Amino acid sequence: MIANTPKPPYYAVIFSSVNTENLAEYSETADRMVELALEQEGFLGIESARNELGITVSYWKDLDSIRKWKKHAEHAIAQERGRKEWYELYKTRIAKVERDYGYEKT
Amino acid sequence: MIANTPKPPYYAVIFSSVNTENLAEYSETADRMVELALEQEGFLGIESARNELGITVSYWKDLDSIRKWKKHAEHAIAQERGRKEWYELYKTRIAKVERDYGYEKT
Repeated sequence: MIANTPKPPYYAVIFSSVNTENLAEYSETADRMVELALEQEGFLGIESARNELGITVSYWKDLDSIRKWKKHAEHAIAQERGRKEWYELYKTRIAKVERDYGYEKT
Repeated sequence: MIANTPKPPYYAVIFSSVNTENLAEYSETADRMVELALEQEGFLGIESARNELGITVSYWKDLDSIRKWKKHAEHAIAQERGRKEWYELYKTRIAKVERDYGYEKT
């Protein structure tokens, strides 16, 4: 559930969003986008949580794989539908992960 | 709710976590940490969502302000208590936001 990313450096796309109330086919499309992302070159993992605010962080090998994913035909259609129907607002941040560390209860 | 961050570059701390079932004083402490973070030099904003997985992204001016916040005495006590009581596992990623863009329905 916490993405098992490699050693930094790698990239994170932080997608923060607030939904509209018109969510027809939203969760099916979101699931399909995850399925599709998994197949992309350079994809490293994804984490997602939502209350009023939704945060999805996807992890990528480099900027080039992020660019290609943004332009992926089926993903582009979903993005456009997102703006028209599902998102009240969103913000996307592209960030280079420089360091990471973790903890696991034993 | 979506943090009103300045133009990049700035830094993001992506904190992904899974809670234990022992959450006594967890939400009070989390609220207090947000209150305290707001007072710190270099703090730019925070976004949070939780289902099974929790994701909190805090935004900072630079690595130095992140370092100081990590070592802040009251925060350090909360982190230690988090490991002992509230978190089954977590991962922290420090990332430099290079680019951002957004959308808002009109």
